[in-house]
Amino acid sequence: MGDRPFISLLSDFGSRDPSAGIMRAVILGLAPQANVVDISHEVAKYRVRDGGLLLWCAAPYLPVGSHVAVVDPGVGTERRPIALRVHRGDVLIGPDNGLLLPAAERLGGVVDARLLTSTAHRLPVVSSSFHGRDIFAPAAAHLAIGVPLAALGPEIAVAGLVRLPWPLPEVRDGEMVAAVIYVDTFGNVKLGAEAGDLRRALGKPNWGAILRLTRPGQRAVIHATWAETFGRVAAGAALVYEDSYGRLCLAVNQGDAGAAFGLHEDDRLTIQLEQPGL
Amino acid sequence: MGDRPFISLLSDFGSRDPSAGIMRAVILGLAPQANVVDISHEVAKYRVRDGGLLLWCAAPYLPVGSHVAVVDPGVGTERRPIALRVHRGDVLIGPDNGLLLPAAERLGGVVDARLLTSTAHRLPVVSSSFHGRDIFAPAAAHLAIGVPLAALGPEIAVAGLVRLPWPLPEVRDGEMVAAVIYVDTFGNVKLGAEAGDLRRALGKPNWGAILRLTRPGQRAVIHATWAETFGRVAAGAALVYEDSYGRLCLAVNQGDAGAAFGLHEDDRLTIQLEQPGL
Amino acid sequence: MGDRPFISLLSDFGSRDPSAGIMRAVILGLAPQANVVDISHEVAKYRVRDGGLLLWCAAPYLPVGSHVAVVDPGVGTERRPIALRVHRGDVLIGPDNGLLLPAAERLGGVVDARLLTSTAHRLPVVSSSFHGRDIFAPAAAHLAIGVPLAALGPEIAVAGLVRLPWPLPEVRDGEMVAAVIYVDTFGNVKLGAEAGDLRRALGKPNWGAILRLTRPGQRAVIHATWAETFGRVAAGAALVYEDSYGRLCLAVNQGDAGAAFGLHEDDRLTIQLEQPGL
Repeated sequence: MGDRPFISLLSDFGSRDPSAGIMRAVILGLAPQANVVDISHEVAKYRVRDGGLLLWCAAPYLPVGSHVAVVDPGVGTERRPIALRVHRGDVLIGPDNGLLLPAAERLGGVVDARLLTSTAHRLPVVSSSFHGRDIFAPAAAHLAIGVPLAALGPEIAVAGLVRLPWPLPEVRDGEMVAAVIYVDTFGNVKLGAEAGDLRRALGKPNWGAILRLTRPGQRAVIHATWAETFGRVAAGAALVYEDSYGRLCLAVNQGDAGAAFGLHEDDRLTIQLEQPGL
Repeated sequence: MGDRPFISLLSDFGSRDPSAGIMRAVILGLAPQANVVDISHEVAKYRVRDGGLLLWCAAPYLPVGSHVAVVDPGVGTERRPIALRVHRGDVLIGPDNGLLLPAAERLGGVVDARLLTSTAHRLPVVSSSFHGRDIFAPAAAHLAIGVPLAALGPEIAVAGLVRLPWPLPEVRDGEMVAAVIYVDTFGNVKLGAEAGDLRRALGKPNWGAILRLTRPGQRAVIHATWAETFGRVAAGAALVYEDSYGRLCLAVNQGDAGAAFGLHEDDRLTIQLEQPGL
Repeated sequence: MGDRPFISLLSDFGSRDPSAGIMRAVILGLAPQANVVDISHEVAKYRVRDGGLLLWCAAPYLPVGSHVAVVDPGVGTERRPIALRVHRGDVLIGPDNGLLLPAAERLGGVVDARLLTSTAHRLPVVSSSFHGRDIFAPAAAHLAIGVPLAALGPEIAVAGLVRLPWPLPEVRDGEMVAAVIYVDTFGNVKLGAEAGDLRRALGKPNWGAILRLTRPGQRAVIHATWAETFGRVAAGAALVYEDSYGRLCLAVNQGDAGAAFGLHEDDRLTIQLEQPGL
């Protein structure tokens, strides 16, 4: 894995508790040459889908390496600790609860799935509540120092891996319905849809078109400009744009769309064309 | 200290201000080969005991190295800047206010205590309010590049180091009283007691026993299952378990026990057996 | 740039979103030997001046290297992506919106300014909303592996760089007026003035002098001790001191001055001498 093997970490452990730092320390104790990068440890608690989305966002920009993700409400139950080799060459490590699969698919799909049973590649004592420290971080570190994936445990069936439900857009003639899947720290509202979905539903509107966004059972209408960039609209104005990951996103230029429109994860938005662009 | 000497950092500096980053930068300017790991910079402001607890949690999982901890309400007063060599070989660096001693004891106890007086191993200008940058980080970096501990300053008496009061459990026949010592970011309520204390007080209850927790002067009773793992109870149900550091902890499976029961640091809980396990 | 080139990062991306981690990953993918240090990713959203101040604070303590700063409300508009070589040897990288100049001046001033136009030194696809990932991080990484600054794009005029308005103190005979420029995570209130300004206005008061702070249109008076260190005043008492960066600062010993006095950025304070020190 090169002289500076790459390991990324993502969790819902928060930055106040020492858990994330302990994972970093465990890794560097075993693999002192590793480059360890935190993607986020502030995933909303227990929100497996959020974690899966953030890892999906980051995956194409991560060097090939081992990526540990821990959003794990089922820690200490029968849920399986796994490692997934993907087509690009990375290994994704974490609980078998759906967290890893969106990123795995973005990196070419799973080519080898393993159950992390090897006690030689765990910490000597495995707790019931901190597998990030005791199982997942040591697995990544051992891979980084050249232990083959097959040594970490037996192969398991890819078809048997737990999958998350993922909200898909409804593309109709003249409208699209999509769910909010994430509101980022700027208040940008990420939708469970891609720009191509909107273009198909609304007949390829030009930049500058005015969109009409409504919510079931609510009369309030959000008007937003279909824009290639924030700078097309005035500060404080709403826009719908393709974010830097290819997702459809509702934002307020230099403002907080989530707060302004009271939008939260899983809210559904119907998007129609109010006025074509020029 | 090896070709990648290990340095950990812990403070109450927060992640918005540049202070933690400046400590990292000062270290890497002096010791570019160091592996620098943040344990936490979100320790509650001025809460020396919190910082001491988090360092105690992390210590066994840190590679042998130098560990800088700064929760320092007395910065700029007579409180002493110190470095403590422990039996395992690590050096703990920070203010002499009790912050370092729980971790020092967990790593085998202090074998050499030093006062950080050497001006050659500080930054050229020492401020009155940021010793993390000016004294502690440079001390760790100098150790990492091979400066002997004795060069950092004169030996001081271990017996004279400031010790924190630490809440101990009261173990009686049939009940235990313990104080809340930390509520983590999941809302798990850490108690100033270990699992063995509860077992001694309650006669080794089986997993599944129902515990009764009460607070002085309050009629509300908390019922919680004595459980080896979160998964033993339903989502939303309370449990008492041994956390991954060996501490007794009250939690709500996939919930926030601190918020649910209104518990804060230093609240006292009496724990009795309501119903034996099977 | 040595065998461990140094790169620092500062942004308003927050720690929940994956953006900061993605910048780190992009850098280490291109320059695996780099030491990457986060100064802060919690700069208040869109507050260019805050970011500029924090970078100014950190700059003298950073090893010579490349420093990426992204507080960029104008991303995707005509604002220019730039890199500034300063006299000390560092290169500051980010948007041309004034963010970089305070630190650049503190490091000796700009000696070579470049427009980041080289497509060979960006990511293959440049989004309209994440230039930190697509332009700025790759620029820093390329410098770290030895690409000359001149390769990143054409020279631009230093005189044409965007400058931020910066609140300056008004020093009068017997009083000084200064604006709040930052409230740190401890609640310490940083003023747009240096200790020398206060000394000139108030005739070099001795430590222990009592200062009188008032706000336009408000009758409430803040009394604070002019102190060389927090420890001069009792816990809970107010002091004015020279912070560890040389700035004038209002604080409450072991308390939160911002909350106690309801002070926010851009509030103006008039400071007079109430009672001389001894």
